[in-house]
Amino acid sequence: MSAVVTAVERVRRAYARIAAADRPEVWIDLRPQAEAEAEPALVDARVAAGEHLPLAGTVCAVKGNIDVAGLPTTAGCPGYAYLPERDAPAVARLRAAGTVVLGTTNLDQFATGLVGTRSPYGAVRNALAPERIAGGSSSGSAVAVALGIADLALGTDTAGSGRVPAALNGIVGLKPAPGRVPTEGVVPACASVDCVSVFARTVDEAEAALRLLADPAPAAPPARRPGPWRIAVPAAARLGTLADGWAEAFTAAADRFAAAGADLRDLDLTPFDRVAAMLYEGAFVAERYTAVGEFVDALAEKGGDGLDPVVAGIIGAARDLPAHRLYADLAELDRLRALALAQLGDADALLLPTTTWHPTFAEVAADPVGGNARLGRFTNSANLLGLCAVAVPAGTVRGLPFGVMLVGRADTEARLCTLARLLTEPPVRLAVFG
Amino acid sequence: MSAVVTAVERVRRAYARIAAADRPEVWIDLRPQAEAEAEPALVDARVAAGEHLPLAGTVCAVKGNIDVAGLPTTAGCPGYAYLPERDAPAVARLRAAGTVVLGTTNLDQFATGLVGTRSPYGAVRNALAPERIAGGSSSGSAVAVALGIADLALGTDTAGSGRVPAALNGIVGLKPAPGRVPTEGVVPACASVDCVSVFARTVDEAEAALRLLADPAPAAPPARRPGPWRIAVPAAARLGTLADGWAEAFTAAADRFAAAGADLRDLDLTPFDRVAAMLYEGAFVAERYTAVGEFVDALAEKGGDGLDPVVAGIIGAARDLPAHRLYADLAELDRLRALALAQLGDADALLLPTTTWHPTFAEVAADPVGGNARLGRFTNSANLLGLCAVAVPAGTVRGLPFGVMLVGRADTEARLCTLARLLTEPPVRLAVFG
Repeated sequence: MSAVVTAVERVRRAYARIAAADRPEVWIDLRPQAEAEAEPALVDARVAAGEHLPLAGTVCAVKGNIDVAGLPTTAGCPGYAYLPERDAPAVARLRAAGTVVLGTTNLDQFATGLVGTRSPYGAVRNALAPERIAGGSSSGSAVAVALGIADLALGTDTAGSGRVPAALNGIVGLKPAPGRVPTEGVVPACASVDCVSVFARTVDEAEAALRLLADPAPAAPPARRPGPWRIAVPAAARLGTLADGWAEAFTAAADRFAAAGADLRDLDLTPFDRVAAMLYEGAFVAERYTAVGEFVDALAEKGGDGLDPVVAGIIGAARDLPAHRLYADLAELDRLRALALAQLGDADALLLPTTTWHPTFAEVAADPVGGNARLGRFTNSANLLGLCAVAVPAGTVRGLPFGVMLVGRADTEARLCTLARLLTEPPVRLAVFG
Repeated sequence: MSAVVTAVERVRRAYARIAAADRPEVWIDLRPQAEAEAEPALVDARVAAGEHLPLAGTVCAVKGNIDVAGLPTTAGCPGYAYLPERDAPAVARLRAAGTVVLGTTNLDQFATGLVGTRSPYGAVRNALAPERIAGGSSSGSAVAVALGIADLALGTDTAGSGRVPAALNGIVGLKPAPGRVPTEGVVPACASVDCVSVFARTVDEAEAALRLLADPAPAAPPARRPGPWRIAVPAAARLGTLADGWAEAFTAAADRFAAAGADLRDLDLTPFDRVAAMLYEGAFVAERYTAVGEFVDALAEKGGDGLDPVVAGIIGAARDLPAHRLYADLAELDRLRALALAQLGDADALLLPTTTWHPTFAEVAADPVGGNARLGRFTNSANLLGLCAVAVPAGTVRGLPFGVMLVGRADTEARLCTLARLLTEPPVRLAVFG
């Protein structure tokens, strides 16, 4: 990410692109252009003075549930807004590297959703197919990158909010394992598993941003047994209902890894599926009530102005989940985590489609909760299992982006990015003998 | 623990002592003497053949919530009983070392209590003062050791059940950090923090037993900064209401450490107190409902035969605690754990009185819940904080045993035992100059 233009010029271009794109629903609070243009002059001066600022000449967007000093943090709910005095550490780390923040982006309210429609700031249209959803909850961040407005965007990921919108908009979504990037200054969804994630148009850019965002890695990433890359790939028949043509696209992505010399092996997805179902069907959803439930209840009592009814319904229903069930679920999660990690074995990554379909706005409106649940079938489990993941484009199907996801053990983010590049870069053709 | 008598002879003496002591309430299922005498002949034969069995010639008692093959596991509730096919790993490890199990011991039902009175098998009388409580929940195990019937006894410890009865009966209670001894085959109280603990009359015997019981320790225990032992000791005035003479006895114990050359330093007990209060006042008690709540509810509906009313009340009240409160409590516990460990700092141990008073049966009956809570003021926090502890006798006050507790970071059990010996063995007198 070297500065090909000055920071001032990059900001100017971003605002021109914002005007041309005409997607006002992407933003909750876009900084006035004059204000945003004042900042990069300083970046350019520092670079001119010889300072190394790896993100000089880039602009970024920040999901509206992450604190940006001087802009309201809304979490997609106007009544919840507060004005943070300082940047969240994730924002501060990117800014210290020279990027300029354009503003805060739209999201499914309280990061509760994978659709990008659950917001009083408007449903976010897909970057490439405006009659379809952008995916969420980091909807505005993903679209800002996909439209070429921002070079980078911060999202959050609890159930898949940093990956599903990457897949649906044809960009890269990198989600570290829980704990790798500080979540201070982020409105919690499920505080114990929330992650700050990053969107970019290339794996290289996403990885470089994560290196700036993350706390120092442990002394050594998990050891790997020598030999070719090993990728666990479930049989396409085991993936359940997918959009037309997606099973074939998934198989093609797996084939591309095989062609690059990777060993593919089958695995039993059952423990991953069970954990994914627990995220919303069990007691874990109560953590969303811990975070914002009392606020939501109080606002609902006053008429619910600005409250998304689907989100309010999900959070309200979490109020009465019993703690004894949560203990049972936590114990079951421990059991399933052991099974899931055993299935992963010594594989470097698990390859999955990032999501299962790409609905229109009408399809989501017809079944807001069920349609959302279908989107998270493959993403819901990663954070509960303590895993990291990168969602990358893997071609198009019927003119729409199709994406796959590489999922790996904690602290293997760099390894996943190396694997992801096998898909996104021109493949090295191996000589075949015999 | 070398065999001073044959194993057969040791078992014979144990049954003679059982008859002489006339404390039938100590046992839930005492093995028939003939059966118990058949087993040690094999132990003696193995020793005669040259095998090293570190517990040959010893007998032990097992708390009635731990599986002993062939004896019912009751957890203090006759209707809950099941007949385990195999020993719990903790029992199996002691047996493999040559000890003979005499039977299962009485306890506060479902290990819910620190009094030893909450059992349909009878209230357990103190070994030394029969009008007073034995303490619990490992009441029978502690009294069997204190009366000299058993050399060792297994207990469990969630809120202090492996330490309070040690203090009240003048013996040693060693409680490893959660996770050091497997809890398979143990009826859970609060599964996420339950520990198997050991009672003995000396620190050496307790430590030797723990070495047999524990999973292999991590490669290295936590490093310590060189220098004299460092013991954190709260000011006696900060300890709240204690039985008459106990503050002075506590100060005398601290003085003895100082006389042995240890550095004593003050600490702020507030985070420990807060965590202790959370164990029963917050949502953590819901884990007891997860373990046995449905059973208790069903039994209560059928008339509650054999159900202790105080225990049933505590577990039943845990049914409706909300999961969102548990998430809040878990986050608060993380916060308080960091504060508590900061207070501990580089101290090798925290010295505390093990408990606060030694009530009569009448005093407990007058306030069953409040009186119990007073007993756990110092013990309740250790397991939630992930700490280990050893409770040791520290003299007598008004003819009754007084005990103190050394509490330390996980994997410092051996270090705590070394410190405990400074109290229980004749002190090394240091020359004083000047």
